[in-house]
Amino acid sequence: MGLCQRWRLLRLPGFQACGLHTVREAAVPTPPNWLVERRGLFEELWTAQVKRLESMAQKEHRAIRISLPGGQKVDAVAWKTTPYQLAQQISSKLADTAVAAQVNGEPYDLERPLETDSDLRFLTFDSPEGKAVFWHSSTHVLGAAAEQLLGAVLCQGPSTECGFYHDFFLGKERTVRGSELPALERVCRELAAAAQPFRRLEASQDQLRQLFKDNPFKLRLIEEKVTGPTATVYGAQKPVPTPQSDISAKEDGEEGHEQAGQGHNSSSSWRFSGAPETLQRVSGISFPTAEELRAWEEWREEAELRDHRRIGKEQELFFFHELSPGSCFFLPRGTRVYNALVAFIRAEYTRRGFSEVKTPTLFSTKLWEQSGHWEHYREDMFALQTPGSDRPTCSQNDHHTSRPTDTLALKPMNCPAHCLMFAHRPRSWRELPLRLADFGALHRAEASGSLGGLTRLRRFQQDDAHIFCAPAQLEAEIRSCLDFLRSVYAVLGFSFHLALSTRPSGFLGEPCLWDQAEQVLQQALEEFGEPWDLNPGDGAFYGPKIDVHLHDALGRPHQCGTIQLDFQLPLRFDLQYRGQAGALERPVLIHRAVLGSVERMLGVLAESCGGKWPLWLSPFQVVVIPVGAEQEEYAREAQQSLRAVGLAADLDADPGLTLGRRVRRAQLAHYNFLFVVGQKEQTKRTVNIRTRDNRQLGEWDLAEAAQRLLELQNSRAPNAEEMF
Amino acid sequence: MGLCQRWRLLRLPGFQACGLHTVREAAVPTPPNWLVERRGLFEELWTAQVKRLESMAQKEHRAIRISLPGGQKVDAVAWKTTPYQLAQQISSKLADTAVAAQVNGEPYDLERPLETDSDLRFLTFDSPEGKAVFWHSSTHVLGAAAEQLLGAVLCQGPSTECGFYHDFFLGKERTVRGSELPALERVCRELAAAAQPFRRLEASQDQLRQLFKDNPFKLRLIEEKVTGPTATVYGAQKPVPTPQSDISAKEDGEEGHEQAGQGHNSSSSWRFSGAPETLQRVSGISFPTAEELRAWEEWREEAELRDHRRIGKEQELFFFHELSPGSCFFLPRGTRVYNALVAFIRAEYTRRGFSEVKTPTLFSTKLWEQSGHWEHYREDMFALQTPGSDRPTCSQNDHHTSRPTDTLALKPMNCPAHCLMFAHRPRSWRELPLRLADFGALHRAEASGSLGGLTRLRRFQQDDAHIFCAPAQLEAEIRSCLDFLRSVYAVLGFSFHLALSTRPSGFLGEPCLWDQAEQVLQQALEEFGEPWDLNPGDGAFYGPKIDVHLHDALGRPHQCGTIQLDFQLPLRFDLQYRGQAGALERPVLIHRAVLGSVERMLGVLAESCGGKWPLWLSPFQVVVIPVGAEQEEYAREAQQSLRAVGLAADLDADPGLTLGRRVRRAQLAHYNFLFVVGQKEQTKRTVNIRTRDNRQLGEWDLAEAAQRLLELQNSRAPNAEEMF
Repeated sequence: MGLCQRWRLLRLPGFQACGLHTVREAAVPTPPNWLVERRGLFEELWTAQVKRLESMAQKEHRAIRISLPGGQKVDAVAWKTTPYQLAQQISSKLADTAVAAQVNGEPYDLERPLETDSDLRFLTFDSPEGKAVFWHSSTHVLGAAAEQLLGAVLCQGPSTECGFYHDFFLGKERTVRGSELPALERVCRELAAAAQPFRRLEASQDQLRQLFKDNPFKLRLIEEKVTGPTATVYGAQKPVPTPQSDISAKEDGEEGHEQAGQGHNSSSSWRFSGAPETLQRVSGISFPTAEELRAWEEWREEAELRDHRRIGKEQELFFFHELSPGSCFFLPRGTRVYNALVAFIRAEYTRRGFSEVKTPTLFSTKLWEQSGHWEHYREDMFALQTPGSDRPTCSQNDHHTSRPTDTLALKPMNCPAHCLMFAHRPRSWRELPLRLADFGALHRAEASGSLGGLTRLRRFQQDDAHIFCAPAQLEAEIRSCLDFLRSVYAVLGFSFHLALSTRPSGFLGEPCLWDQAEQVLQQALEEFGEPWDLNPGDGAFYGPKIDVHLHDALGRPHQCGTIQLDFQLPLRFDLQYRGQAGALERPVLIHRAVLGSVERMLGVLAESCGGKWPLWLSPFQVVVIPVGAEQEEYAREAQQSLRAVGLAADLDADPGLTLGRRVRRAQLAHYNFLFVVGQKEQTKRTVNIRTRDNRQLGEWDLAEAAQRLLELQNSRAPNAEEMF
Repeated sequence: MGLCQRWRLLRLPGFQACGLHTVREAAVPTPPNWLVERRGLFEELWTAQVKRLESMAQKEHRAIRISLPGGQKVDAVAWKTTPYQLAQQISSKLADTAVAAQVNGEPYDLERPLETDSDLRFLTFDSPEGKAVFWHSSTHVLGAAAEQLLGAVLCQGPSTECGFYHDFFLGKERTVRGSELPALERVCRELAAAAQPFRRLEASQDQLRQLFKDNPFKLRLIEEKVTGPTATVYGAQKPVPTPQSDISAKEDGEEGHEQAGQGHNSSSSWRFSGAPETLQRVSGISFPTAEELRAWEEWREEAELRDHRRIGKEQELFFFHELSPGSCFFLPRGTRVYNALVAFIRAEYTRRGFSEVKTPTLFSTKLWEQSGHWEHYREDMFALQTPGSDRPTCSQNDHHTSRPTDTLALKPMNCPAHCLMFAHRPRSWRELPLRLADFGALHRAEASGSLGGLTRLRRFQQDDAHIFCAPAQLEAEIRSCLDFLRSVYAVLGFSFHLALSTRPSGFLGEPCLWDQAEQVLQQALEEFGEPWDLNPGDGAFYGPKIDVHLHDALGRPHQCGTIQLDFQLPLRFDLQYRGQAGALERPVLIHRAVLGSVERMLGVLAESCGGKWPLWLSPFQVVVIPVGAEQEEYAREAQQSLRAVGLAADLDADPGLTLGRRVRRAQLAHYNFLFVVGQKEQTKRTVNIRTRDNRQLGEWDLAEAAQRLLELQNSRAPNAEEMF
């Protein structure tokens, strides 16, 4: 039953009173009838829970020892003492700020009695786990407010990396308007303060009141619509969370090559077999204190100023057009940044023994059947018939029958093409490791609702490479992949965090192969020396992987690079090489990328530098500014000579603006260097240089200045303005 | 009626005697019955011709004056004296070698009486026009031989730039085998010597005997099959010549951007609405003398050695795979050459004020409708439906209806995308000329039968640029386009020839606009100073153009570059800019390319240099050869240090081969430079250098040698081995 039908069934008199099209001030209206049904279900579960709690009360209350972080040990009573009680013992501040506990590494509610000797850690809002708990509770508050205020039928409402959201259904023609958000926010605050209608399994009302007592709810509307599967009201039927289902579809290819790294927020559409029904999504963020909310609001303003779509438009880097949705048009300046990124990676390829190749864009679906993409990824691929392939033919082999129609598909990934390249002639161990890199354009049929800026595109290119190596070479290759990542991210100014994801349930291949590979990855990570996490069971079914999360200048995480082992593709393509002993052996395949999607990385960089590009990436390297009209010709000459050596040089000879105004304009436009030329400079063929941050670098010979800029550009100096 | 049915009708008893499946020695078998029908048609036409000749005989035989090249004038009699008679008067050699005449610029048979005072020029085999006449007659001989020996139903048989071919039908399951060619050649020679069964309108048998008296027929089999329209027996129904129909289909886009430049030979498939039937094509070449044939055979051997498909395989530059027909896989070495070509053009773009941009690959067919491609070029485009676009939706705007299905197509050309880019915001005269360059991948649905090597591909990239300029800027832009061509071709070692093609019948736009534009192009060509031809009426319907034919090292012509004006696209996209006076004005669009398809240019270059790449393009720049096993480590170190600075350096430390054999092997593999390292070199960290042509360059410091190679590479020296 779709949402539409369910909606009609649910339109009961009491429900109408919720005020479907108006924002009402009433905090808690008469509950609609279907809420009774849901409450019945909840009471049932609650009764069972109470029984469980009662059975706990009969357990033996023996003395146990609880270890705290730092080695301190405290006494407690089994099945009686709660983490919250221990937090109060330690300090009232800890009890105030703790949102949950971890007992022996497992999440634990603060009110849940401890059972045995354990390691205990308190989670505060400062930790990712603490935020997740806080935001998970917050989304319930949001859901309740949406029910009461809007008469919403609730769907999923998870926490995300940067807040939470709730999807709900308001009827086919009803959307949430931005003007309704303040009222929704107020109801949230009231509900949180009252903590009245919330009861969680395994949590007392006191704790909830505690959690939200100072909660300044802040809501933000995400405009995109969400189309979802048959609605579920509070878990009566388990909703399939969007992001995970997205990832599992991608696992058959290269999960880590997934373009979008902005977390769950950016994914908003459901794939399913029924008629889609539009859900509304309201996203929000909440904090324990008002100060934290204020700090976030400031950060948010800065981030909005830095939105890459805004920078892309202001700086004329790129634009989008409805005639090619999801594909970016890079204007001359954007192409300059793009090509500089590609040239950077090419230079690293040269240093590191990678071989660039070029492979086709269109392949017969036979290839995708062989690679497994056709089975698992077909819906995300652009497929077509060979023009003319449906015409009948009467060649000598094929009398009076139609030629079989050949379906082609645009490649969503490069790996199968590289497997064909490996296999196109016999290979020897002497050729390994063979590192094939490809900047080929990839196409993925992302839903139009999920497209936004450079974050999620239908067409993009990756700094994609596949390493075919002998098992014994694996560790050295992984180490050098990690080194590759580190040196590129250092130049780009990113810190990063690594995580090893090991075999999931349902993995394919030999367990002993997995054991070895996971050990090798672990060993490489240890020797690499950067901290890393273990995500057991989070690998792809075809091999373990190292996830790489970089952090931009605003501290936001992005998943761009990836290192993944693949035991399956070498099997599917029957890849072999003649080993040193003469026998045929099977290579291991490593998928890796550092930038990930070049397009998305360009967007991340634009936001990270806030449009103030480092010289080597900058489409605004120099502006030449003549003091007066008499110097315009020399200024133009200087500009042309800078352009001829490949520098991005513009001219601002606008006679309508004073010199000072033009200097200011150039600095606001983030030109790295300003070359001012007056009478003296013209005579001596020099330029007077200052930077966008108004450092005065004085008079330079024009040719020498150009040479110095080229040096700084070619060395990819992050701060050329200071090093000049 | 298709060929199959016609074939059944034609299988008459006499015809069977031709020996359909065996090669018979009989020169002239019993003519099949259908030949009678055809002869009836011919006799009918011949009778009319004889009557015309008789009416000529009654014309007044007055004295006329004929001007010969060089200014000489001779007397003749109107309606009586033939060019052949005048040739005999001049010299018996001229009469022997002339194959046709030109009277007042028009083609004229040697036996056709002159009518009035005229300019007369004799065509010999040395001229392109003479070759065309000779080969046109030759293809009739081939056709007759195929009829007699194989029982062929004849289809078209034109002359080409390098010989002639004849297409014919042999029944559905019959092909021409290579082993049959010698017999076919013998029959051709016999027929040519006898000149018996040939009668041409307006030509005596004497002249034909003359033409073929010393004709050593040479035939070559083209393996590709030809599928054709309803068969025509000797012009009873006019066959549509393939190449022309191909070109006219392309004229709606950019004719000069056509990939294939090898002339008619490379195009071999027909588009039509009925069922395709496989034709056989036999290609041939013929010469007036045996010496010329021998010279051609030597040239041919050299050309076959240089076939780019052969070089591509031997040097591991690229390969093709059945899972992506018509799309090339560039291996690491081929990608190196490819990227060097692109980098070369990029450097020129920087010097010349072109701005590189990146545009999408997939566009809604609405774009192609606007540009006119959908109307005229649709069959050659890869089109597809947006995945999921046929799913119904129930959004607020669009109740219960299906979303309109959006058809997308892969771009076959960049120009419409560049028009969108020009139009995406208001433009000012200050921005002109705007020169947008794009290396985007293009896809064209070439018939699989016409694919071959890099000459004709389904996927390729061009050094494609579009210049949007004010009419007053046109001449300067054209001149600098010509200069661009000249300097690139000079570096690549090509000579070239220019031709101006003016308005065809059926041109679109204002005649006065055409007048001006043609004058501007003519003016630019004059000032450019290279010789050029005028091809009146050969322009595209959307604007006049300059065709560029380059000549490779073997003297073979290729059409790669192009310069075309376009008055139509600015109209179709309503392109405008704010003029200096404040009014909106319409820009002129210039399509231009220098390399044309980068893929095809790579093939042309491979053949032109015979695999001996100039240093800057070479994937075999250096091989390091240790004298003995003791030097292997130093040799490897030297190789790595060369690679690290971006040079293509290999190592040959094969212990199974002597130093001399390894040096020889490296020279045969065309390594530009050989760095030999022995004990002394290892100690001093030097290398002993020699070239592929075995010039000894002596001992060099390793770092200095690398530096020198980089200089020669970056200056794109054509003969780095001599300049080192």
